[in-house]
Amino acid sequence: MTRIAILGATGYTAVELIKILLRHPEAEIVAVTSRQEGQPHIAMIHPSLTGRLDLRLEDLSPAEVAARAECVFSCLPHGASASVVSVLVDAGRRVVDFSADYRLNDAEVYAQWYGQKHADPARVGKVVYGLPELFREQISPAQLVANPGCYPTSAILALAPLLKAGVIDPRTIIVDSKSGVSGAGRTLKLTTHYPECNESISAYNVGRHRHTPEIDQVLSTVAGTSIEVVFSPHLVPMDRGILTTTYSQPIGQIGEEKVLQTIRDFYDDEPFVRVVDHFPGTKDSLGTNFCDITARVVRGRVLTFSCLDNLMKGASGAAVQNFNLMYGYPETTAL
Amino acid sequence: MTRIAILGATGYTAVELIKILLRHPEAEIVAVTSRQEGQPHIAMIHPSLTGRLDLRLEDLSPAEVAARAECVFSCLPHGASASVVSVLVDAGRRVVDFSADYRLNDAEVYAQWYGQKHADPARVGKVVYGLPELFREQISPAQLVANPGCYPTSAILALAPLLKAGVIDPRTIIVDSKSGVSGAGRTLKLTTHYPECNESISAYNVGRHRHTPEIDQVLSTVAGTSIEVVFSPHLVPMDRGILTTTYSQPIGQIGEEKVLQTIRDFYDDEPFVRVVDHFPGTKDSLGTNFCDITARVVRGRVLTFSCLDNLMKGASGAAVQNFNLMYGYPETTAL
Amino acid sequence: MTRIAILGATGYTAVELIKILLRHPEAEIVAVTSRQEGQPHIAMIHPSLTGRLDLRLEDLSPAEVAARAECVFSCLPHGASASVVSVLVDAGRRVVDFSADYRLNDAEVYAQWYGQKHADPARVGKVVYGLPELFREQISPAQLVANPGCYPTSAILALAPLLKAGVIDPRTIIVDSKSGVSGAGRTLKLTTHYPECNESISAYNVGRHRHTPEIDQVLSTVAGTSIEVVFSPHLVPMDRGILTTTYSQPIGQIGEEKVLQTIRDFYDDEPFVRVVDHFPGTKDSLGTNFCDITARVVRGRVLTFSCLDNLMKGASGAAVQNFNLMYGYPETTAL
Amino acid sequence: MTRIAILGATGYTAVELIKILLRHPEAEIVAVTSRQEGQPHIAMIHPSLTGRLDLRLEDLSPAEVAARAECVFSCLPHGASASVVSVLVDAGRRVVDFSADYRLNDAEVYAQWYGQKHADPARVGKVVYGLPELFREQISPAQLVANPGCYPTSAILALAPLLKAGVIDPRTIIVDSKSGVSGAGRTLKLTTHYPECNESISAYNVGRHRHTPEIDQVLSTVAGTSIEVVFSPHLVPMDRGILTTTYSQPIGQIGEEKVLQTIRDFYDDEPFVRVVDHFPGTKDSLGTNFCDITARVVRGRVLTFSCLDNLMKGASGAAVQNFNLMYGYPETTAL
Repeated sequence: MTRIAILGATGYTAVELIKILLRHPEAEIVAVTSRQEGQPHIAMIHPSLTGRLDLRLEDLSPAEVAARAECVFSCLPHGASASVVSVLVDAGRRVVDFSADYRLNDAEVYAQWYGQKHADPARVGKVVYGLPELFREQISPAQLVANPGCYPTSAILALAPLLKAGVIDPRTIIVDSKSGVSGAGRTLKLTTHYPECNESISAYNVGRHRHTPEIDQVLSTVAGTSIEVVFSPHLVPMDRGILTTTYSQPIGQIGEEKVLQTIRDFYDDEPFVRVVDHFPGTKDSLGTNFCDITARVVRGRVLTFSCLDNLMKGASGAAVQNFNLMYGYPETTAL
Repeated sequence: MTRIAILGATGYTAVELIKILLRHPEAEIVAVTSRQEGQPHIAMIHPSLTGRLDLRLEDLSPAEVAARAECVFSCLPHGASASVVSVLVDAGRRVVDFSADYRLNDAEVYAQWYGQKHADPARVGKVVYGLPELFREQISPAQLVANPGCYPTSAILALAPLLKAGVIDPRTIIVDSKSGVSGAGRTLKLTTHYPECNESISAYNVGRHRHTPEIDQVLSTVAGTSIEVVFSPHLVPMDRGILTTTYSQPIGQIGEEKVLQTIRDFYDDEPFVRVVDHFPGTKDSLGTNFCDITARVVRGRVLTFSCLDNLMKGASGAAVQNFNLMYGYPETTAL
Repeated sequence: MTRIAILGATGYTAVELIKILLRHPEAEIVAVTSRQEGQPHIAMIHPSLTGRLDLRLEDLSPAEVAARAECVFSCLPHGASASVVSVLVDAGRRVVDFSADYRLNDAEVYAQWYGQKHADPARVGKVVYGLPELFREQISPAQLVANPGCYPTSAILALAPLLKAGVIDPRTIIVDSKSGVSGAGRTLKLTTHYPECNESISAYNVGRHRHTPEIDQVLSTVAGTSIEVVFSPHLVPMDRGILTTTYSQPIGQIGEEKVLQTIRDFYDDEPFVRVVDHFPGTKDSLGTNFCDITARVVRGRVLTFSCLDNLMKGASGAAVQNFNLMYGYPETTAL
Repeated sequence: MTRIAILGATGYTAVELIKILLRHPEAEIVAVTSRQEGQPHIAMIHPSLTGRLDLRLEDLSPAEVAARAECVFSCLPHGASASVVSVLVDAGRRVVDFSADYRLNDAEVYAQWYGQKHADPARVGKVVYGLPELFREQISPAQLVANPGCYPTSAILALAPLLKAGVIDPRTIIVDSKSGVSGAGRTLKLTTHYPECNESISAYNVGRHRHTPEIDQVLSTVAGTSIEVVFSPHLVPMDRGILTTTYSQPIGQIGEEKVLQTIRDFYDDEPFVRVVDHFPGTKDSLGTNFCDITARVVRGRVLTFSCLDNLMKGASGAAVQNFNLMYGYPETTAL
């Protein structure tokens, strides 16, 4: 049994994380934190937790968290997260960080995309990127894991096998992603006000979205060459789910079956990647930790289509998968 | 041609009103007001108006409005509206007020339900309720019209014929309403944040919703006896539309066909009420000024089902219908 | 470990049932049946099951089913279900029947509402209604359980405590229900074609819905007097969830707190009923086996508001709850 | 006043067309046809037309149609349309054909993509493609106009200015389109059954969608060189609207402002194309005949984003725009 604290527990990734951990036989949630005034019961914030978790939100210092919990999931926003996580790690706690703070290996790239100096630059570049399908061996012993972004997971899982096998030209990658609204978080914004975004689809932050350098970095690592993708996120009127469509030029002639087989071989033993023949819908993986992938070759281009639930494989499911690896529990426990 | 100003032009009723007036051959929009900083172009706030209306939002005083426009539509919130409208009316302008300020005939009832003293108590009780199907003759010559609430319109249009004909017992009325999210306005709230209200239905403000006394008052006038309804509003995951289901006891035995015929007769010459045999869906009247009504008798109870678009017949469509009556334009112009 | 067959496995209740049973430590799914041609793999019909259940749909006779499985969940349509279930029960198998065939205690009432003679009249009236909150003791030893309808569960759970305590007048009950579209099943119909029902709400089958006699019967049993409710179902543009609003007259004067306390006391030890103070949204119980209930007293009427997931507590979750009781597994296993 | 017949009036494009024509001062709908049995009133099929159009569906021969109407809008499916339209054109009627039958200039390409021989091969290649922004002069005098597909309109309007100006490399075009469900029509299919497609996004028919050769052909004409695009359509959970994102390589270095200016200049006098700076959402043009376009340059690629309402500028709005040109009415009448 592992004693767990969850920092920043008012958001959507936190409530999803709590629901997974509640069915995890080896997890005990001992603290949920927030700066919310008045220490409300967690069920006041998330009515779906009524009768399921009897804890109040507390405004705890990092030291208080470290005193209570062995393992910490930080759902704090970027910037805020690193300054707390660094204290916890110094105190010997193991941490899964949902924020982007430790995902990028270069503090300057971080500063450029996130518009602020990194709060814990000494650790930057030494933290494993928590995508088990690529970095399982480094995750298991890690004290700190940078939980991946939702868009990057969908793009990287689709493209990594093809880059690794040298099937596609790394200079030609386009990533066109479509996400449900929960990906934008629980903070009130006009763009996610129901009558604004319902029954409408639009692109946003194209060329400026902060997941861009994250996709670049991991794909570059995989390919062994510097990659810069064109990344276009779109907001879709649905709660959950990401569909990422990628376009790239093959290196040489390649058939569709070969592309599919390359991806299939890569994920042969993976419990949470399903390589399928049909075009997956995001609903197929809704509420699960699966990522569904297929591919096509159209007029000489390689296309991939990958779906996942942004709150599960795109966030909290992945976090628990990492937690399971870190603590030696079966990787699929509670997922 | 009538020169029109629209006050409080950043909300959903205002943009809908603008779209209707843009196709009205006798309406010219000369001012749109808001306290929004920087006097942004209206299309910056409502992108759907791009290329359709070339005006900036202005923070005008009532006197400035009166100097520019002959007719004013006030989309200001309750409380704020009366203090501006009273000046405009004193200045001789004709006004359609979207707020609740002049709907109730009793300043004490207003104070009780709206939690504030009325800003223009002298006019309370002397303003016509802008429901042409009941009060057409008073609307035509009126200088000030109180535009009805969306829920009240749906309930009143369904019940008025039955009360007038003495078919139902006024002490037994239950009003169960279901509304799309645009009815809650454009102000950001957690309850109308997309991931909170999408794929969910819930009741809200039952017993405390401010449309309750408005329904009471108009039905009481129609019935000639004091009526207090039980009113339950529900929030439905869709942009627009209200479906109101009512339940009441008949006076004596009555058949379904008689109930339907009573309603049909009442609205025989009405251009915007359609009495139908099937169960209407809110989509049937989406984007139109129609209210669709049917009725059933089930196990001795009389049930009515009425649908309308809350931004059209429930707000801006009704306002233009009133405007047409006030200015002697054909009642259906632009609708 | 219990060997389980699922009959009629192409619909939404079946796929939901499969997902629950896949996480049940004591359940093994050994057969999934359908008349679907060509015995397709279950994942061809339900892509969400890819990699999770490796079975083909088979067109098995009742005898073949009985030979393979110890426990059978029948998701066959009414009429078809009784003729198969009767054979299975005769062969000694234990059955949870999702259809309405064994819910009503009177074959004539069945014939009247379902428009056909009952296929197994000898058993009618001897089968327990599978609502553990009311009939737990009869469910545990039962060989055959009639799994309740989704609307009835939401209405009965809200009203039973008040009827049992004599708090409300049984002659005055109105049930206004709002359901997501999955409740209408997977058979293609114009009314559930996306562009028809999306962004629209409408009533349907008012006074004729087949769940009416089921609500009547169970409430009558609870109250010890004959009850006929007025039942109005509405179709809401969302996948899952039912919100039922009920209206009734109290017997004598009663306060809101007393009403709430009556319901609270009734469900004190129940694992799946949450009596709450706020107005529940259907999203609070989405994907869970909970039923959330609150109540209000408005102008002398008693109102209840109850929410559940129609595919969980309204169907497959309830079925597994019954299964757990029948086989002596902890009642909340896999739920 | 022009006497109009609408063929195949049961679908979504037909009902939208009727609504536009009802507000057209010079259009009189004299016949609506369908093979629907029993000649139901049009309002039985489309309840939204209740009280607005008093016609029954009739199963008329082409000769009967020609006898009644001067102008015919054919909403018949491809294949069926050409065989009727050819008779009408021979009889001297003017026709706007919503089907794909006359859009392609090559009967062999038609046969290849539509899987059938063309019913009127003699006319193939001689019919104007009804996109006024490109072919206004040929549309005005035309007897027969091939109304464009919804996806092609969104892609062509975005790309034509850039191809014409030689700004982008015609060999590098990727078209990633996202459409609401009404684009799939009113015929019942599992993929458009509400619980299947709601809350889900998926790609479909990638590389095989029949709008592919249509996009190819018109862009080739514009560019003066043979173009083959990669086209990926996606189904989005909303009623209406298409967002098309395109990716292409610029010829030489080009800045974002230059790209935007090229598009702006091209559509300078167009009443229905709005070139905007922000990312348009499909809701901005919902219910209108506008196409909203913006562009970006990201990491050396040119990206365009175009939105339209698939039932308006993507179908019925465009058809009335063509009708207005053909009959010399102001081009924006009723739009």
